[in-house]
Amino acid sequence: MRVGELSKRSGVPVPTIKYYLREGLLPAGVLTSPNQAHYDESHLRRLRLVRALVDVGELSISAVRDALAAIDSSEQTMHKKLGMVQEAITTVPNTPIDERSVQEVKDFLARHGRHEDVDAEHWEISRMLTAVLSAARSLGHDRFHEQLEPYMAALEMIAKADLDYMLGRAKSVDDLVESMVVGTILGDAALIALRRMAHAVESERRAKEEDQV
Amino acid sequence: MRVGELSKRSGVPVPTIKYYLREGLLPAGVLTSPNQAHYDESHLRRLRLVRALVDVGELSISAVRDALAAIDSSEQTMHKKLGMVQEAITTVPNTPIDERSVQEVKDFLARHGRHEDVDAEHWEISRMLTAVLSAARSLGHDRFHEQLEPYMAALEMIAKADLDYMLGRAKSVDDLVESMVVGTILGDAALIALRRMAHAVESERRAKEEDQV
Repeated sequence: MRVGELSKRSGVPVPTIKYYLREGLLPAGVLTSPNQAHYDESHLRRLRLVRALVDVGELSISAVRDALAAIDSSEQTMHKKLGMVQEAITTVPNTPIDERSVQEVKDFLARHGRHEDVDAEHWEISRMLTAVLSAARSLGHDRFHEQLEPYMAALEMIAKADLDYMLGRAKSVDDLVESMVVGTILGDAALIALRRMAHAVESERRAKEEDQV
Repeated sequence: MRVGELSKRSGVPVPTIKYYLREGLLPAGVLTSPNQAHYDESHLRRLRLVRALVDVGELSISAVRDALAAIDSSEQTMHKKLGMVQEAITTVPNTPIDERSVQEVKDFLARHGRHEDVDAEHWEISRMLTAVLSAARSLGHDRFHEQLEPYMAALEMIAKADLDYMLGRAKSVDDLVESMVVGTILGDAALIALRRMAHAVESERRAKEEDQV
């Protein structure tokens, strides 16, 4: 298909497609004449993935580039590939951190058998948690770290559902990595929306209980 | 304190503080001379809140302005105030949506007793879920909606922990609203980090089980 049809089928405007081509987020089409390129289904699929990462995942262009590089890398160990992807799609806030929060995160990770000092793979997770607890502390929320345990218990249920879903779809390592990116980014957005809904449900439930007292 | 000390205590550079003042994210200090203003603890606290919203919540300046307006509004019903805050801090992706995803979200909300057509309060949640399912479908993930049920079950646990935390801290409606903003934004970031950790834990658990077969 020509760029016009690619645009029509993806809903992405032609100038944006050309921008992604220049930025290397979309591989070049096959030239059919000096001014015309031909695109196929793989371009359409990649374009939709870029849009999901940008629009739903709110990733920067450079984070999208890193995520795609991880998906496309010739690295064959799934473990390493997933690590690269996870690093690419996780943005760590650049906020001041404090020592007590560092220690709380270390303690939490140790309780769950993750020793971040020796476990470079979990470095982003550890930095992200530390940033969150530090930001909370700077706002007077000194005990926010106590939320991590009930969160983790609930997330173990979510991780089971996620892995069943991702592994259930994948026919190859590449499939699995793409599934992991999509499932992680879209799942984050779904969790954020549902958390707000769960707050409303729980808050109404408590209001009703109070009325009955 | 002067702007220099405000900067030192918050870790926010003076030019950024001046930018926030111009953008109305921080109330003006009390002028002590034509070129000098005095700031107090309330400015420091507000400045830290702005940083948490920008750095951890990744909110745009205009979303921060809306969130602060909700916190400061004279609206006295907690229910309405929380609705305003939630709307301000929830960014809905601007992606093409499809009719099947719209129906799946309606069905899901109806199963949980939320009827979005009559329930304007949940409009953002409904739009966000629809955007997620539509993006998933465009990538060939037609059954992503099946993830919503296990997610919701886990989020009910999280919502209980969240409300215990938020209500436990709050001494007034204003306290509660600020606590809700902080708890929602920081909690989202913590959940995203812990979900990646839970994936790693679960994936290693399964790899070990396979080794034992």
